[in-house]
Amino acid sequence: MSLVIIGSVAFDSIETPFGKTGKIVGGAAAYASLAASYFSKEVKIVAVVGDDFPREDIEDFHRHGITTEGLQVKEGEKSFFWAGKYQQDLNTRDTLVTELNVLADFDPVIPESYQDCRHLLLGNLTPSVQRTVIKRLRKRPELIVLDTMNFWMDTALDDLLDVLKMVDLLTINDEEARQLAGEYSLLKAARKIMKMGPRTLVIKKGEHGALLFQENKVFSAPALPLEEVFDPTGAGDVFAGGFTGYLAKTGDISFENMKTAVIYGSAMASFCVEKFGTERIKNLSPGEINARVNQLAELSSFSVSSF
Amino acid sequence: MSLVIIGSVAFDSIETPFGKTGKIVGGAAAYASLAASYFSKEVKIVAVVGDDFPREDIEDFHRHGITTEGLQVKEGEKSFFWAGKYQQDLNTRDTLVTELNVLADFDPVIPESYQDCRHLLLGNLTPSVQRTVIKRLRKRPELIVLDTMNFWMDTALDDLLDVLKMVDLLTINDEEARQLAGEYSLLKAARKIMKMGPRTLVIKKGEHGALLFQENKVFSAPALPLEEVFDPTGAGDVFAGGFTGYLAKTGDISFENMKTAVIYGSAMASFCVEKFGTERIKNLSPGEINARVNQLAELSSFSVSSF
Repeated sequence: MSLVIIGSVAFDSIETPFGKTGKIVGGAAAYASLAASYFSKEVKIVAVVGDDFPREDIEDFHRHGITTEGLQVKEGEKSFFWAGKYQQDLNTRDTLVTELNVLADFDPVIPESYQDCRHLLLGNLTPSVQRTVIKRLRKRPELIVLDTMNFWMDTALDDLLDVLKMVDLLTINDEEARQLAGEYSLLKAARKIMKMGPRTLVIKKGEHGALLFQENKVFSAPALPLEEVFDPTGAGDVFAGGFTGYLAKTGDISFENMKTAVIYGSAMASFCVEKFGTERIKNLSPGEINARVNQLAELSSFSVSSF
Repeated sequence: MSLVIIGSVAFDSIETPFGKTGKIVGGAAAYASLAASYFSKEVKIVAVVGDDFPREDIEDFHRHGITTEGLQVKEGEKSFFWAGKYQQDLNTRDTLVTELNVLADFDPVIPESYQDCRHLLLGNLTPSVQRTVIKRLRKRPELIVLDTMNFWMDTALDDLLDVLKMVDLLTINDEEARQLAGEYSLLKAARKIMKMGPRTLVIKKGEHGALLFQENKVFSAPALPLEEVFDPTGAGDVFAGGFTGYLAKTGDISFENMKTAVIYGSAMASFCVEKFGTERIKNLSPGEINARVNQLAELSSFSVSSF
């Protein structure tokens, strides 16, 4: 059951209170596909890089069983580059550099072998490009997941609202949910957003866990209390990748199974923030993932009886 | 198994985006004892009011089975009065009036019938007065719970640190935990705070639920996503009262039972914010409480299996 993931594959340069990286691999599709690869054996990416993108980093995807037939390599052009610096509390970050490069006129190519995909994850990217991918798939996937961020609400709201009508599930963070709906209460915001198109909504709350909404159903997932968040970059993409990867692996998109998928997504995100960039999620074992999922289950279990 | 609760019993005047009250009953001991009364049949308060405090409001306590032998009524004096106004998001509030009145020289009296108490809740109040109550109990209660707030960290830190050494369990909110420990990570903050005295710590996170820490154990409790928070006043006191009341009722202070107590405390707090002041928690049925606890259980339940 193949899972197609679209998003950026890029270079990042990250500074946190704990250190600073050189140019390392980043981008929504990189983070999400690596996370999804632990669950689905048929992860296929649609992205674009320049010829400065190292061959060995593409081979990293292959080692994780990720198909890169839809990854365009533009000769004579440069990969997208983002540099950012996190404040002391790691909740705010300043963008230091954004060089769009190949992303400026990204025209996604869908290889024939991607056409039968059952699940589609539209990673954080220009909404109009996300829409193009949906239109270029001849058969509508069974589940279309959209991840986005406040930047697109500020700069491309009409396109975003348009693509929202075409998807099944949206993942955003709490501040973004409030901004998109114009409601402070997350419950009210969720109801409004589900009227914009997606039947299901995941609100990511970082250290406070995540909420899953569908019709009148709500699920609250805990987050693992962490000693230290080392680098939050990519955690949202990894959540979306782990979540969608788990759904693709199990082929079950019931609300009950989505709850479990939120837990797997949260577990993957909790690994992501432990090291810079993709370092931690490139090197995980199924045993580690299961252990962390069990930790989340243990963390939030309790028993009640009528009093 | 009696539960003694100390704290203020007072008048509040509250303004939220949804409306404004006249002088209504408030104070930590009022909120906490009403919440605890649904669980324990032996709730006894230690507090002080002026002769302006209406007899019918004292009878409200009696109707809830609360003993007021330790409630001093000072002739010719006035009750503590606080007026506050909440901002639009209800997360920040401005204090408009604080009249200490009888609280200025509150000297707590412990009636003989209180001396055998098994559980003690030191509601939010001057730390030195909280300490006096501990010292005036001839037999140390099995469980001493302390609730406090940032105001005392700013104005009476030494006394607070002193009383912290004498208690078993502390309840504070996330910002206060960060302030007290000087650590941003709540896990690190919790470890530091548990070295200050209390073996167990509850960090209240409002709309994000609560965390319970003891040694290396952690429990994450969900919060009910609410349509609207009408008035947050007293929610923390109600949490502490419901939590301690449940422990007093069951007589079981194991970590497992404390997890359930956190859920009952959260359920009570979720009622509290639905109406102004104590209105909602004065008028609850066991059936409503059980239904909400079941809702919290439903909200956070999921199943995992190795993948």
